[in-house]
Order: sequence, then structure tokens, then C-alpha cells
Amino acid sequence: MLIETMTRQASIALLDRTRLARLAYVRDGQPHIVPMSFAYDAECLYSFSTLGEKIVSMRANPRVCVEADELINVEKWETAIVQGRYEELPDTPRYDADRRHAHTLPQRRPVWWEPGYVKTIIDGKERPLELLYFRVHIDRISGRRGVP
Amino acid sequence: MLIETMTRQASIALLDRTRLARLAYVRDGQPHIVPMSFAYDAECLYSFSTLGEKIVSMRANPRVCVEADELINVEKWETAIVQGRYEELPDTPRYDADRRHAHTLPQRRPVWWEPGYVKTIIDGKERPLELLYFRVHIDRISGRRGVP
Repeated sequence: MLIETMTRQASIALLDRTRLARLAYVRDGQPHIVPMSFAYDAECLYSFSTLGEKIVSMRANPRVCVEADELINVEKWETAIVQGRYEELPDTPRYDADRRHAHTLPQRRPVWWEPGYVKTIIDGKERPLELLYFRVHIDRISGRRGVP
Repeated sequence: MLIETMTRQASIALLDRTRLARLAYVRDGQPHIVPMSFAYDAECLYSFSTLGEKIVSMRANPRVCVEADELINVEKWETAIVQGRYEELPDTPRYDADRRHAHTLPQRRPVWWEPGYVKTIIDGKERPLELLYFRVHIDRISGRRGVP
């Protein structure tokens, strides 16, 4: 197997056909990774979540990383890594168009939003379902692929 | 689908049967994610890599996060997330036993080491193959699963 760099276009294409990725954020110098359902559009990754530690941390430090991959087998895979900036899309007139946009994207991708908005039982308590839209602006993108 | 917390034992079991994960490290406040082949043993995740930006960053800030998952389908999945501490296993007498240990682990898991030690061509230049062992000490582990 060889590992090669991917073009920006190939990395974007991978993001465009992927709907599950991993999001990393930083809190007090400690990185955290969480799985994230998303949809790519126009240099941004759109997602939503309930309000929790992840959102609070990204509000404090909006620098995030997103990794998406497609693993065919151990010798044939692609991975795209985005360094980006978290932006919340609050429920205010200024963000109305963006929120509508974020809301319609999932309709092209059935169930991509499920992990962000399902009944979650943490330590026996049901998590409140306060819906929150956000996007990640792509500052830098790189991709690598394994070639048999 | 429900999302539930997993027991520590179930999270460790997931790490034990997984060989590919995502590693996050921090450089200058920016998180980075890279795919990582690994093997779990005795509260540590063992891996190796060639010397590069990832290793240099983890030497500067050893706080890392590792995420492993098993996705059966969008309603049935498990993910384990480790907050941990990077430790290099240098080629010195003090680390001889640990390095031998790290070296024998992959033999139980064919090809888990491949992405860390293959011929890599970055921007047309072959990457030097300086082999470097490390482990991640598990400080905290949490797991969640989707239940249909």
C-alpha cells in the first residue's frame, strides 16, 4: 500500500458523499472527539446538536477539526481532515436564511441528523432536547488515501 | 433509536476488539484528528508512527483523545472515547520491555500497523520512515451506544 495526498477537489468530494464524521474540539487544553452527522455545502459543514458540553466548549474556543473517511479495506481508504471554525446559527432574524438552509439539507440525506436529536438517556436521566444548529467554516482541508 | 451510556467494561471491550481509531491532539489551541491503528492492552493503547507533526505536537502537549467505534447501521452502533496521556517509548534500556511489548501486540492483529509505517508520498516526496513507538494511558473512558 502507498499513502498519497488527495487534491482539494477529491477531499471535498469525499465530504460531499459522507454523512458521518468525527468532530474534535478543545476544552482546557484537552481535545475531545465526538461522532457528528453532517452535510457539506459551499465550504461549510452543517450539523445540529442538543445543548451540552460540546456546544459550550465550541462557544469558548471555536477552533475545531472534522475528520471524515471511507474505508473500503485496510489497503484502500480515503480520509479528509478539515481545520475549521465553529459558528452557531441562533434563532434570530439575521440567521433565518442560514437556519432554513441547514434545515433543508438533511432532507437530501435521510436520517443523517438522528444521532444529534434522539432521546438520549445519560445516567438514567433523559437529556433535554433543545435543538441547536451550527456550521463549521472550512479554513483548511487535506486528504490522504491508501492505494493498494 | 435510543442513545445509552455504556459501562466501562463494555467500552474497554469495544477498544479490545477494534484496531482502527481516531486520535486527536492539540497544537496552538487547534485540535487535529488523525486515523490511528492501535492495540489495547492493560489500560493503554499501543501504536506507532513515523516522526512528524503529530509526534512533535504530542511531545509538546501530551493530552490526547482517542475515539473508536463500531457502526452496524445508523440505529445500532457503539463508540468509546478515551481521554488520555501520550507517552513515547524511546529506544533506551528503560523502555526495552515496553517496546518489546508494543512490538509483539500487532502480531495478534494482522496489518493493524500498516497506516503508521508504509511508504508515504507527500507532495511528491517520500516521507522518511523513522519508526517510533508510543502508548496512550487511559485517564478517562466513556462509551455510548445506539439501540434500535
